[in-house]
Amino acid sequence: MKNSFGNNITVTLFGESHGPAVGCVIDGLTPGLIVNDEEIAKLLSRRRPVSVIDTPRQEPDNYRILSGVFNGRATGTPICIMIPNENTKSGDYNFGPARPSHADYTAHIKYNGFEDYRGGGHFSGRITAALVAAGGILIPALNSIGINIGTHIAECAGIQDESFSENEETLMSQIKALNTKNFPVISEEAGEKMTAAIHAASEEHDSVGGIVRTAVTGLPAGVGEPWFDSLEGLLSHALFSIGAVKGVEFGKGFEAANSRGSVFNDPFVLDNGRVVTESNNNGGINGGISNGMPITFGAFVKPTPSIGRPQKTVNFLEQKEEELTIHGRHDPAIVRRICPVIDSVTAIVLADALVTAFGPRVLLKGKALWNTDL
Amino acid sequence: MKNSFGNNITVTLFGESHGPAVGCVIDGLTPGLIVNDEEIAKLLSRRRPVSVIDTPRQEPDNYRILSGVFNGRATGTPICIMIPNENTKSGDYNFGPARPSHADYTAHIKYNGFEDYRGGGHFSGRITAALVAAGGILIPALNSIGINIGTHIAECAGIQDESFSENEETLMSQIKALNTKNFPVISEEAGEKMTAAIHAASEEHDSVGGIVRTAVTGLPAGVGEPWFDSLEGLLSHALFSIGAVKGVEFGKGFEAANSRGSVFNDPFVLDNGRVVTESNNNGGINGGISNGMPITFGAFVKPTPSIGRPQKTVNFLEQKEEELTIHGRHDPAIVRRICPVIDSVTAIVLADALVTAFGPRVLLKGKALWNTDL
Amino acid sequence: MKNSFGNNITVTLFGESHGPAVGCVIDGLTPGLIVNDEEIAKLLSRRRPVSVIDTPRQEPDNYRILSGVFNGRATGTPICIMIPNENTKSGDYNFGPARPSHADYTAHIKYNGFEDYRGGGHFSGRITAALVAAGGILIPALNSIGINIGTHIAECAGIQDESFSENEETLMSQIKALNTKNFPVISEEAGEKMTAAIHAASEEHDSVGGIVRTAVTGLPAGVGEPWFDSLEGLLSHALFSIGAVKGVEFGKGFEAANSRGSVFNDPFVLDNGRVVTESNNNGGINGGISNGMPITFGAFVKPTPSIGRPQKTVNFLEQKEEELTIHGRHDPAIVRRICPVIDSVTAIVLADALVTAFGPRVLLKGKALWNTDL
Amino acid sequence: MKNSFGNNITVTLFGESHGPAVGCVIDGLTPGLIVNDEEIAKLLSRRRPVSVIDTPRQEPDNYRILSGVFNGRATGTPICIMIPNENTKSGDYNFGPARPSHADYTAHIKYNGFEDYRGGGHFSGRITAALVAAGGILIPALNSIGINIGTHIAECAGIQDESFSENEETLMSQIKALNTKNFPVISEEAGEKMTAAIHAASEEHDSVGGIVRTAVTGLPAGVGEPWFDSLEGLLSHALFSIGAVKGVEFGKGFEAANSRGSVFNDPFVLDNGRVVTESNNNGGINGGISNGMPITFGAFVKPTPSIGRPQKTVNFLEQKEEELTIHGRHDPAIVRRICPVIDSVTAIVLADALVTAFGPRVLLKGKALWNTDL
Repeated sequence: MKNSFGNNITVTLFGESHGPAVGCVIDGLTPGLIVNDEEIAKLLSRRRPVSVIDTPRQEPDNYRILSGVFNGRATGTPICIMIPNENTKSGDYNFGPARPSHADYTAHIKYNGFEDYRGGGHFSGRITAALVAAGGILIPALNSIGINIGTHIAECAGIQDESFSENEETLMSQIKALNTKNFPVISEEAGEKMTAAIHAASEEHDSVGGIVRTAVTGLPAGVGEPWFDSLEGLLSHALFSIGAVKGVEFGKGFEAANSRGSVFNDPFVLDNGRVVTESNNNGGINGGISNGMPITFGAFVKPTPSIGRPQKTVNFLEQKEEELTIHGRHDPAIVRRICPVIDSVTAIVLADALVTAFGPRVLLKGKALWNTDL
Repeated sequence: MKNSFGNNITVTLFGESHGPAVGCVIDGLTPGLIVNDEEIAKLLSRRRPVSVIDTPRQEPDNYRILSGVFNGRATGTPICIMIPNENTKSGDYNFGPARPSHADYTAHIKYNGFEDYRGGGHFSGRITAALVAAGGILIPALNSIGINIGTHIAECAGIQDESFSENEETLMSQIKALNTKNFPVISEEAGEKMTAAIHAASEEHDSVGGIVRTAVTGLPAGVGEPWFDSLEGLLSHALFSIGAVKGVEFGKGFEAANSRGSVFNDPFVLDNGRVVTESNNNGGINGGISNGMPITFGAFVKPTPSIGRPQKTVNFLEQKEEELTIHGRHDPAIVRRICPVIDSVTAIVLADALVTAFGPRVLLKGKALWNTDL
Repeated sequence: MKNSFGNNITVTLFGESHGPAVGCVIDGLTPGLIVNDEEIAKLLSRRRPVSVIDTPRQEPDNYRILSGVFNGRATGTPICIMIPNENTKSGDYNFGPARPSHADYTAHIKYNGFEDYRGGGHFSGRITAALVAAGGILIPALNSIGINIGTHIAECAGIQDESFSENEETLMSQIKALNTKNFPVISEEAGEKMTAAIHAASEEHDSVGGIVRTAVTGLPAGVGEPWFDSLEGLLSHALFSIGAVKGVEFGKGFEAANSRGSVFNDPFVLDNGRVVTESNNNGGINGGISNGMPITFGAFVKPTPSIGRPQKTVNFLEQKEEELTIHGRHDPAIVRRICPVIDSVTAIVLADALVTAFGPRVLLKGKALWNTDL
Repeated sequence: MKNSFGNNITVTLFGESHGPAVGCVIDGLTPGLIVNDEEIAKLLSRRRPVSVIDTPRQEPDNYRILSGVFNGRATGTPICIMIPNENTKSGDYNFGPARPSHADYTAHIKYNGFEDYRGGGHFSGRITAALVAAGGILIPALNSIGINIGTHIAECAGIQDESFSENEETLMSQIKALNTKNFPVISEEAGEKMTAAIHAASEEHDSVGGIVRTAVTGLPAGVGEPWFDSLEGLLSHALFSIGAVKGVEFGKGFEAANSRGSVFNDPFVLDNGRVVTESNNNGGINGGISNGMPITFGAFVKPTPSIGRPQKTVNFLEQKEEELTIHGRHDPAIVRRICPVIDSVTAIVLADALVTAFGPRVLLKGKALWNTDL
């Protein structure tokens, strides 16, 4: 599928950093879904650089919907969203010396030297704007049937944010708050320390990475299509398409490596007649299928590869070693801007999995459909 | 795709723990690939229980190839491998009380009560035997073109194995050795400690988890189909289909959360004219495409859910809380038996990605094809 | 997808004419669908040779269900059906001289000489038994929600059967009757003439082809996923997988080539408040989507390639021209035995398209689901 | 896949007749393929209305390539082509009374009343411009490796064109000539009669249909992926996505219904050491795989549904019968404009099938790749 993802709802990406536009085609949407320009714009603005801790490249993201929307609603035919590139400075980029940790070298090999190398071409973070535009349709759709998604910067430059609450109501408030924040953390204090640390790294022409954590509330039990289309399989597949993500864990994750079954297992209990689990170490997924608890996962975001310090590298055109100092515009940390991207990817995957489990109308009818035997 | 995976080479799984058989259909194999019964049997035997640290359920894995092989070679048409279930004891399993961390409850919801619940049905680890049978064809195929895969138990019950070497030759010896071991660790001493710890947990009717780490040598640069079919996306998708895997990280992974770009980036250098990286924190993948370095990743394997201790749970038939003590046969640790499964899944994914990049003949021709401009 | 077909319900075929077995894996079935051995056996028996007009190779079709069925119902996990080959006579087949109109030569080229050539290998009509086994599950499922499928031999050896009625009730009786007949024609008289003509061709060591026509009643309006997954696109794709089918037309088809729009268009009218069309030249499909009228299509079935007369051909091993007389066992006409295959393929495609449009439960709930706004 | 088609090369369509634009995304192209604006423009111009026999709606087709092309060549990443709609007159279209033989009613049911009904919305022939734009890249690519595609109007309004020659060289000249013609027929005389007949129908506010026939030369043997991805299956699937196509036949097709095997079979012979068939009744395809002979197929194109005469229909909003006279702009015959669409669809399918068989480089290397054992 290469640049397409999804079984019943499919998102196809296109675009390069310095080409005319980036964008996506979203196919298979339930006819009648509201497409709200304000929501798309708001989500895109959460991804935009805001301050010294982000890249100075400012893109207005004046997207255009080319198809599939009529009278403010999805028709059910493909929606093409185009986001023109307006602020491009190709002069900043050299061809030849591979930027370490970037796709310059691998793209050159894969595409036999025909790649559009300007600004990283198709491998630029710029393309995530198209994912976010799709999220601007699918996140509100999920919200309207009671499913909410939030992502926070759980760890950055050695500073840890407060954790998601295990109480579902508190968690829902945390998610709500995160979705209004420019720097999505639960503890403002931790956020200030992180911002300072990112700033410090930037001053030293360096970059930082971190861990972002996501929680989803309201997903019904029974979603996911094992073996291969387990919820973990689908989510991780889509999450790893984001260049900076190099690790994905569900629930407790790697830190539970030394746990025992008696501690790790999540006992089932009844809560007012509803089956819930006392703990949620499995991140709301058993056997690849949602169990009705919040879906939780974390993603390791590697430090931004572009740094302003001299680095050893190879010029793959001339096959010789070189020293490279990157001058272009870049983010000293991606953890902030990646949050709406992860929310969007999550929404795309879950909307698709819901439609597979319950049919296309589920995105309009929600509970009314999954709680009936129809 | 549900129980099928792959773009050009597709594996479809079927079977339940206590049904007549488990198995798989492998489609799209390069005609002429050798199918060696000994190799399949050897790999299946590495997955079989061997001692007190594994389940007492012994399955002879007398697989039968029903199609697609002629004169010891793949014809190019689908290979169906059937592995009969011979040693089933359905009486051990109750229907109603959900085993915590298992798929009992979620399968019951998803399949509307029609699931084959005996022994976990389609969610049993038994189905991984079919993956391993597929691996028994694809691992030797990759070996024959110079690609080697090895997995070790990097951490279990708090004990750490020695790490994979950063020296490629040493790494290749480590891989070779691992593939002959019943308990795949690099350091025998660590292995003995782990075995003892697993045994101890077993005595206490408990289970342990751990982290397994995989390395792949010999994969050429240029493999992977971003955005969505990045190598990380494809590998993680398939790896998470294994029920016990709850985390996947490439290269350095989560432990690098507080690294800076200047440290994390892998500088390119020339090694006798070949482009390599000095470190390999990105696990051999840049921008979703292989860079010619070893592919490395780790998987977090949760503690076996089945434990012999009383656990709180809900009987979903009667909608009431219950105490459950699991008596069936189960593994106190999956980390050992999961290694050949992970090797097999890795081989399936990489063989498919190679064919996508270079055409079907690559599995026979290897270097001769990817080093030519044809 | 090669040997797999379908979006939400997927059928994967495997097997060779003279290998251990043929079979299929059906994934994505609605949990709870009844799997009735009698129905499968009955449909398989309709495909079996019955008399001098068919091949003398008799296969008992003692299929085994290896997975996915529990207590007589589909669990929702993959159903693998294996049909052992019991009556194989490989000695009848030569390797080298390509049988004209068969896949001998093309398979030899495609599979680089590694094909299982015995009895046509994977290209044998024998594999259609696996399609019919799948049909044995899906046809009754569709029947149970009011959708009926029937195929008749509309033309064979110059003899024409009576046409399907344009009256829907009469059509439904015709379909019902066809499904009980060994030689599926509407007019018994035409059938007798056809049988005689087939017999005559057989006596002359020759074969005949024909046209089979299919009608489907009860499919609701709104099924089909244009552009590409139009009902015509999906049905034709699957129908052309049957080796002997070389033409597919919907509704009036090619004979309307010289029609004018004013004659060909199907006017909409109301019939007791239901929107219907006065004629059905479009075969129940407008713009790739069902319109609630019977789906009708015809398939051109080429004369059986295997004939007992000497034919010119090339021995592709020795690269020389040769005369070939085929001695193996074969059918002088496929039109009879192809009917249950076409019914099965149609059921597979329509069941999948229904699930895509209305969700998996539609195969159990039918009207109750597609007539609600849920 | 809905609006996407292809396994290794994928085309995704979007757009509505009266929305901002139509277009497509082509993914998986071989890096380095030449993208020639003149070729795209030339092919688009062959699809444009030219005279009284076509619709008066004139669209300049000022397409823009938004991504995936760099320095005049495909980079290998997705190419998005956008073709703005400039000449739209929505006032011409009513909502409510279903135009017979159009998708108005079925789209209304399928999309629950949310469809963009203006000008047929997503079901307008306008969307075929996007297919032709894709053809403008893939047809020249195939040409460059020796594969040529041509389509003629074989029959229209009772008038028959001369047939494709059975001599391959003559056939190649015919194809070459057809690709330069505005009204693609082999016999100019037949063409003039057809034009006159179309004109006459138009005068009578009526429309005509016909049969178009396509020939492809230069495709090597061994292409196609049975069972399901037979060449016939793939081609028909894509061809039936074109709204007006209601029948597809390969080789001799339906007219051979009464043929015998001894006549229909295509004997293999040697022609200067090359395996060829004496006749080509199978249309160059045996068992779903190309045999090296020209691929030939015909498509039945139904009469344009839009006619200027009063027709009976149902107003589906008011659920009452109505008389409808269509005033909008439309073609009295689609057979002319459909030819480049069919060529394009054919090129898309064959390019994809070639890449599946031989790997992505085949579109650049052609013979050099398929004639080697690499």
